[in-house]
Amino acid sequence: MQSFKSIIFFVAAIGIYSCSKAQKQKSANMGKNSSLIFPQGEKITNKNFTGTAYLKMLVEADSVNPTAVGNVTFEAGARTKWHLHPGGQILLVIDGVGFYQEKDQSKKILRKGDVVKCPPNVPHWHGASADSGFIQVAVTNNQKGATVWLEEVTDKEYNAAYHQ
Amino acid sequence: MQSFKSIIFFVAAIGIYSCSKAQKQKSANMGKNSSLIFPQGEKITNKNFTGTAYLKMLVEADSVNPTAVGNVTFEAGARTKWHLHPGGQILLVIDGVGFYQEKDQSKKILRKGDVVKCPPNVPHWHGASADSGFIQVAVTNNQKGATVWLEEVTDKEYNAAYHQ
Repeated sequence: MQSFKSIIFFVAAIGIYSCSKAQKQKSANMGKNSSLIFPQGEKITNKNFTGTAYLKMLVEADSVNPTAVGNVTFEAGARTKWHLHPGGQILLVIDGVGFYQEKDQSKKILRKGDVVKCPPNVPHWHGASADSGFIQVAVTNNQKGATVWLEEVTDKEYNAAYHQ
Repeated sequence: MQSFKSIIFFVAAIGIYSCSKAQKQKSANMGKNSSLIFPQGEKITNKNFTGTAYLKMLVEADSVNPTAVGNVTFEAGARTKWHLHPGGQILLVIDGVGFYQEKDQSKKILRKGDVVKCPPNVPHWHGASADSGFIQVAVTNNQKGATVWLEEVTDKEYNAAYHQ
């Protein structure tokens, strides 16, 4: 009877473990393999990012529609350099935990579902937190000109305290 | 021995059923309670939609940034009326199965991760398929004017064949 109970317990335990593992794997891949909704795209190889990040352009701006949309996946610790957009930018947070900071403001933490409206010509940076990947959709109005890239975000700036 | 096997089978079956049910419920709620990323917002009560749909404005257009962003959740069968945007619109499909059709074109099916670029001044409609909810983020350039609402999408139009 004892071994009978043990077998039932063993079968039930395997079932629960497999179920929980399948559900965890779904979210653990975030920021590593692909975003949850849009493709991860290609690794960014230009000098405007620190760490490893990926870009999938979803919509290119053109002469009729000046709005560009890109899905950016930052691995933990990755971030943009300081930069500004002459026409402003909107960030839609798809998953993970990240940061956004405007010049002379404290760093804000960003989580899934958060939305940021970056004003035109205000230097800022964004990226993943130190221990989580981060996926954002960036909506950029290029009508007044392309992004202007500035200096790197220092480790001191990156590691500064944030507010919610 | 026979009842011993039956009990093991029964326990395993309950485990598998619970796991599969938990995973299904996650997606079945889509389009009913809340979107997977952004809030569902309020029920749309104006006459520009057929069926039940919800809107959460994420970014309002203003004099500096002409881009409005809204998360729209359509229940199965719900859709917009025909309409056009003087500055065009971008649709980002967040979840579910929906349709998009431009005037004089056949209806296209939309799934999670799809992106649509609606040209300026081209009449079109979008909404959920008949048997699935649909969540989209709409990015609308209001610089050249507000959305112009047209006639209702007839059942014949809604039920017409689509292409992938």
